[in-house]
Formats: sequence, C-alpha cells, structure tokens
Amino acid sequence: MPQNTAIHLVRHLDTTPLGPQLFETRQTPLPTVADGQLLVRQTHMSLDPAMLGWMTSDRNSYIAPVELGEVMRSFGYGEVVESHHPDFQAGDRVQGGFGWQEYALVSASEVNAVDPDLPPEMVLSVLALPGLTATQGLLNIGRPQAGETLVVTGAAGSVGSLVGQLGKARGMKVIGIAGSQEKCDWLTHELGFDAAINYKTEAIGEKLDEVAAEGIDVFFENTGGAAQEEVYYRMNAQGRIVVCGLIADYTAATPAPGPNWMQIIKKRLLIQGFTMPDHLHQTGELLQQLLPHVQKGEIKYRAHVIEGLDAAIDGLQLFLTGENQGKLIVKL
Amino acid sequence: MPQNTAIHLVRHLDTTPLGPQLFETRQTPLPTVADGQLLVRQTHMSLDPAMLGWMTSDRNSYIAPVELGEVMRSFGYGEVVESHHPDFQAGDRVQGGFGWQEYALVSASEVNAVDPDLPPEMVLSVLALPGLTATQGLLNIGRPQAGETLVVTGAAGSVGSLVGQLGKARGMKVIGIAGSQEKCDWLTHELGFDAAINYKTEAIGEKLDEVAAEGIDVFFENTGGAAQEEVYYRMNAQGRIVVCGLIADYTAATPAPGPNWMQIIKKRLLIQGFTMPDHLHQTGELLQQLLPHVQKGEIKYRAHVIEGLDAAIDGLQLFLTGENQGKLIVKL
Repeated sequence: MPQNTAIHLVRHLDTTPLGPQLFETRQTPLPTVADGQLLVRQTHMSLDPAMLGWMTSDRNSYIAPVELGEVMRSFGYGEVVESHHPDFQAGDRVQGGFGWQEYALVSASEVNAVDPDLPPEMVLSVLALPGLTATQGLLNIGRPQAGETLVVTGAAGSVGSLVGQLGKARGMKVIGIAGSQEKCDWLTHELGFDAAINYKTEAIGEKLDEVAAEGIDVFFENTGGAAQEEVYYRMNAQGRIVVCGLIADYTAATPAPGPNWMQIIKKRLLIQGFTMPDHLHQTGELLQQLLPHVQKGEIKYRAHVIEGLDAAIDGLQLFLTGENQGKLIVKL
Repeated sequence: MPQNTAIHLVRHLDTTPLGPQLFETRQTPLPTVADGQLLVRQTHMSLDPAMLGWMTSDRNSYIAPVELGEVMRSFGYGEVVESHHPDFQAGDRVQGGFGWQEYALVSASEVNAVDPDLPPEMVLSVLALPGLTATQGLLNIGRPQAGETLVVTGAAGSVGSLVGQLGKARGMKVIGIAGSQEKCDWLTHELGFDAAINYKTEAIGEKLDEVAAEGIDVFFENTGGAAQEEVYYRMNAQGRIVVCGLIADYTAATPAPGPNWMQIIKKRLLIQGFTMPDHLHQTGELLQQLLPHVQKGEIKYRAHVIEGLDAAIDGLQLFLTGENQGKLIVKL
C-alpha cells in the first residue's frame, strides 16, 4: 500500500535554533479522497523567507503559526493523481498550499490549475507567492502609469525582481536598490531595469537625484533601512508607497523611526501595507493580471533548485546566509 | 455708479509680519457681467488658517500663493445680483471663492447654489471648506463602518468637530483629542463624542487604552505631535489613517520623526494624505454626502462672527492667539 512521507514541525523557532531538531519525518498511509477533494503528488515545493515567521509561536502576527505536530506549511506544484471533483482529472498540474510532503489531500477549491507546458520552476518563481505579491502590490495598490518612475527595494529578491519587470512591462522607468554589484548588474543587464543602486557602496540619495531627477511616483518597499527615507523624500505629488516588507526592521534590535509625515500631506501620498494572506482568495484574478506578461516573455526569473524532501530543512538556512541564487525550490 | 471695495494682498507673509501692512483697500467700478457669469454681493466671508499659507510666496506648497496685487483669496457666501447664466437668477444664494471684497464677478461653474433657508454662518462653518474637508477625509478616505472606533486630533477645530460628528452619525465610537478642558467638555457634552482627551494634561496613551481598549479603526490626523504615535500604535488591522493637518510640525523648528513602518505591514494600514484643492471640483458630490447629515440635525457648529470687511485683517491674528471661539466668519 502506497505511503505518504511528510515533515512535521515539532518545535517552534522561538524556542529552538533553526535546524533538523525542529522537524520530524513521518510516514502514513495515503488518505481516502472524499467528494470535492483531490489527491496531489507534489513534485516541487517553494521555500520562502516568510516560513521562518510561520515557524514561530507568535500569535500576534498576521498569519497563524504552524501548530506543533502539523505538517510544515508551504506552497508547491504537483500532479493530480486522483480527483473527486468534476473540474479536475488525474494528470492535471496544480499549485496550492501542499505542505512539506509527497502527497497532499486538498479541496479542489484550494488549488489552482496550471498550464502543463510551463516549467514548474517558473510556476513557483513567478506564478506563485512572489508573482501574486508583486501583482497585488504593484498593479493593484501602486496603480502604475506608463511614463511614471518606480523605485523598488530588495530589487533582486523573488518579489522585487518581478515588481521591477512588471513596472517595465507597464511602461515605467524602473530603478532597483539591491545589495551587491552582481545583483545590480543582473537587474540592469538581464531584467531591463533602467538603473540599479548598490546600497552597500553607493550614496542612495545622490544616486537617486541623478537617475530619478524627475521624482518618484511609486515606491515598492521590501526592505526598510536607509533607502526608505531617501526614496520617501523624493516622492512626487500623488505618489503611492506600497509597503510589502521591512527586513531591516525585522532584524534590528530597535526599529528605526520612520520619516516625518509632512510629506504625506504636501505630496498627498498614499502609503498602503499589505500581506498576501489577505489576498489569497483573489489568486485567480491576480493570475489573470500576471499571466499576459508571462506569456509575452516579459518576466525572467532565477530558480535555485535543491533536491529531495529532506533538503528543505537545510534549505531554510540559505535565507540566513543569503547564499541562494534566485528563488529557492525543492524538487521532490 | 456703484463701486466695489476689495482688499488686495500687497506684501507676502514671509517678508512682512502679519498685520495691515500686508494689505491695501481699493475701490473700483462694478464690472460688466459677461455670458456665463454672475455678479455676487458677498455678505459673509470665511477666515481659515490655510490663508496664512496662501499669503506666503512659497511656490512649493500644494496651492499657489496669492500673487502680490491680487484680491486676497477666500471663500464666502452671498446673493446673486445679476446673472447671465440660465441656472441662476438675482436673489439666489451661492457660495464660492469670492475673495476679500464686497462684490465678486464669477463664472457660474465656480459657485454652488445654497438653500436660502440655511443660516449663512452654518453654510460657511459646515457646508464650506471645513465640511468638504471632513467629508472627503472621513467618508471617502476613512470609509467608516458602524461600530468602528474613530480617533480625531484637533477635535474641537472647525474640521475636527465635523469629523467627529460625521463619525457619530455613521455609528462610530468617537474619541476626540483637544487642548483644553473647555474644548473636551464641548465635544462630549454638546457634540456627543464618546470621550475626549486633553493632550495638555492627560497621558494620551493610557487614556486611549482605557477609552479605546478595542483598538482604533480610523485615525483622522489634524495636528501631529505626541498624539500621532500613541494613536498609530493602537490601530487595528485594516485601519485607515487620514492625514489632513500637522500643525505641530508646521511650527516645529525640527520636524519630529514619524513612527516606524512595521505596523503598516503588520496591520495592513492605509495612510493617505489629502488637501482640498485637489477635490474642489467634487464640491457638488461632497455636499450631497454631507447635506443629509445637516438636514437630520446631526451636525452642530460654533461660529465666531466679526463685522465689516476691514475686520478680516485683524481676524487673522486670532489664528495665532487661538482666541477664536468657533469658526471665524466676517459679516459684511
């Protein structure tokens, strides 16, 4: 009888250091598929920095922690092996929140069908959380107009790189801020960004005055840190600031103060924070917005693929060292 | 032949102290009324703190300065004495940007008809800039829901007092922050606010924990200063912050930093700055939103009326001393 192998979270990250001691691998018989359900064999899993947050016991976050004993939460790509829902049949490719396991039993309403011609790495790098986040944040909150100027921080990250490319696809001038010369070169040479600023070696404000002398219309904020104020004070009237991530503040001992609010009135700024758990029910609509850009070849990605379910455990370490080259994906 | 008396701005406030030396009174023959125009005899003029900004030569503001030699800019109430537009006839009551003068020649498209049964003081205190500002800010940006909690700073001011009453009319719990016990008593005893906090004598944070233990859904910010951070850190998820004024920052030698942005993500906050010059073309729609509340008697106001066109010059001083009791109006 076929078995399912799953990795369960058994300790929280706020009591135990990151490592194999947080997890336990268990085998169980494959479950029975009820009406409306699908059994999916997962072939590729996405690893995302947000997982580190889900692994703590912090109930004040915007997303509930993974409970001890539960299969570790994750998004993935797979093939339907048994369907009890009329919209799906065996062999269909789907993505959804499958968790760290080989087989997932899910409601048909919780998965999205995927074009089988698209590489799984592309689906998870572009059409999953990073792409949904970039689409909701840039297109629906930032409301970009052709000819406007966009600045994105964390520009070489899985979200930031898509935000900048979507901006280019919508006719914007795009400036990325990233943390290495290699990343900056990738942004301008490969992804078509108009300019990139290495915040570790360049004076952000002076460089912005040079490459965005016309001012900034949309600021997509992924990082916090010194870039925030430099971009904020260069916003144009009616500018939109999309607050998606503040990595510098997650790890700072004392969060830095924000900028004075006078600019918010003078420039009539919109500042909007968002997190994807609020918008996952819109996944279908978001993919409809994103797919045309993918189909036109406007979106490039880098995937960093590691092999085997167990590799996920060590894979998380790469978020702490920053050694991953592109979107982290576990191939099962 | 009838004459028009007008007060012109002849010096800017950034070169000359506030006082009669900024102005010159001139008499001119009444102008000829062209097609599409109205001649209005102004009976009441509104004095507003924003005028002090219009009187400087600062071209970086969101509204152009009054040019030297121009009639001082203001909003007022009056009676049509001659109409060359089919929608208006002599005797109609109108409001619009008439300036500091007895008669104004205006395009019919620039004025709004007013119900002649409404007292002019009420029109200028409620149905003019203060009410338009409160309506746009609270109803259209703040999107209040019954049962939600609203905190408004500058709560006893011409805008703040209307914001709080609109909040009550929409079924919100309303907490005002103001600068004297007399103002706080007026808010709770006369205007129906659920609570008021005297920021000069009370610990704002502790008092908010007491009167808004459920958290804050809408923050209407008129003042800046210490209240800002105390309210910000008590916002609920999906909260809206309407940034309308920051008096404390206008006058501060060094603007205070704002709060850290992490709350914007954690709570998915919307922060939106606005100024009315962007929205004056929506005056008709805004009045449609506001009028039902006025007609149901849900909106009270205090008018501080001074007499004679020349009184406007000294009237401006009251904004610096804070001695006015209610909305400042000049009766011609």
